[in-house]
Amino acid sequence: MLQLYIGNKNYSSWSMRPWVAMRQLGIPFTEVMVRFDSFAPGSQFKQTMRALTPTHNVPLLVHDGLAVWDTLAIAEYLAEEFSHAGIWPKAFADRARARSICAEMHSGFGALRSHCPMNIEAALPEVGARIWAEQDAVRANVSRLIEMWGTLLQSHGGPMLFGSFSMADAFFAPVCMRLHTYALPLPPAIAGYVERVRALPAVQAWITDALAEQDFRDFEEPYRTQR
Amino acid sequence: MLQLYIGNKNYSSWSMRPWVAMRQLGIPFTEVMVRFDSFAPGSQFKQTMRALTPTHNVPLLVHDGLAVWDTLAIAEYLAEEFSHAGIWPKAFADRARARSICAEMHSGFGALRSHCPMNIEAALPEVGARIWAEQDAVRANVSRLIEMWGTLLQSHGGPMLFGSFSMADAFFAPVCMRLHTYALPLPPAIAGYVERVRALPAVQAWITDALAEQDFRDFEEPYRTQR
Ligand SMILES: N[C@@H](CCC(=O)N[C@@H](CS)C(=O)NCC(=O)O)C(=O)O
Ligand SMILES: N[C@@H](CCC(=O)N[C@@H](CS)C(=O)NCC(=O)O)C(=O)O
Repeated sequence: MLQLYIGNKNYSSWSMRPWVAMRQLGIPFTEVMVRFDSFAPGSQFKQTMRALTPTHNVPLLVHDGLAVWDTLAIAEYLAEEFSHAGIWPKAFADRARARSICAEMHSGFGALRSHCPMNIEAALPEVGARIWAEQDAVRANVSRLIEMWGTLLQSHGGPMLFGSFSMADAFFAPVCMRLHTYALPLPPAIAGYVERVRALPAVQAWITDALAEQDFRDFEEPYRTQR
Repeated sequence: MLQLYIGNKNYSSWSMRPWVAMRQLGIPFTEVMVRFDSFAPGSQFKQTMRALTPTHNVPLLVHDGLAVWDTLAIAEYLAEEFSHAGIWPKAFADRARARSICAEMHSGFGALRSHCPMNIEAALPEVGARIWAEQDAVRANVSRLIEMWGTLLQSHGGPMLFGSFSMADAFFAPVCMRLHTYALPLPPAIAGYVERVRALPAVQAWITDALAEQDFRDFEEPYRTQR
């Protein structure tokens, strides 16, 4: 039995990745929500996660007692265990490319991640406009996304980055949430991809749950003072 | 034919990981050294890498024209392409664990990485002592390493993290270099592992080349003013 431990759906971008991938690809799992109360050592969140994983973070996959932490390790675990589910693209070169862009996401895009934290229920176009004007590094991150997605959509013909849905789209799904919340400017072909990701059944299900949470966590809210 | 593009061996911790893994596991490749002149857009380094990869970084693996960037994607590419080379541990649960700790390294240990940049030829024990006294986050990173390595060495009996050498040891080899350069305090079992990693033939070969470089790059040198 697979259990996926996740944080608040409105905020937890890393949790969203494996959840969306498994849901969209039909890999059955039980969700265990560990609400973000705080990330202080004594918090309920940290106490719960500390008992399960040495990094004390979500997401965490537990499979018959085996703990697999970190999104990228979870991705590879699922790719081995459910080898026909389509976690990675089928073609050899596409698979290498998909892994390169997921790893790039995993350790990169720091400016976009810190200035535009995921906040699905929020609409922050004015904040986004200010960030866009002031933060060169955010603009550089977005132009890398436009180049990356543009090239892949063109060479595979869409609708997803490698034709059909794969872990690569799940890895960039939280980025699509941010681009939407902060209304960052995008060329039409890229805006179309963002909309197609948002319309995926698994992403729709995640968004619905996120909107139902109504759980304002001030340490995840650099821009709002209330809901 | 495999070509691995790397940066200066004295400084480039990410380059070291796939180089050491391939060399130690007997995967033949050609090294292409792209010297760090600077990371400014107009630098020779960036011009060279820009023509080859969208991230403009090393390491980069090129296999018959296919570019694979980022250490983790390179690791998985090699694991598929050279499935008998032993990139990941053989046992299923060990493989999941190895991927979890490599992914943890890939996006974590920020304090250790920024305060103690890799500098193989340098001996900086006084700097290390000061960092150790002042930086809680560095001590927290090191205690996580001690817990991680201690648990794995005990459960597998050493000499490497999963018994015999794997990508996991290559991922932590640059960390072993840092622990040595900055002489951070370690319990004997962990210090023993650091010494065994340093003594691996591939790591010895990398160190020898690093010492031969004699190439002082001031943007990689927060602590020294000259060699
Ligand atoms: N590299 C990790 C990142 C996981 C991560 O940062 N998770 C956040 C929630 S989205 C977390 O647990 N944060 C708790 C904290 O920062 O203490 C992965 O890819 O899974
Ligand atoms: N996440 C990348 C990191 C690669 C990286 O940061 N490489 C450094 C050299 S060790 C680099 O090319 N730096 C150039 C720069 O920062 O502009 C990986 O795992 O390969």
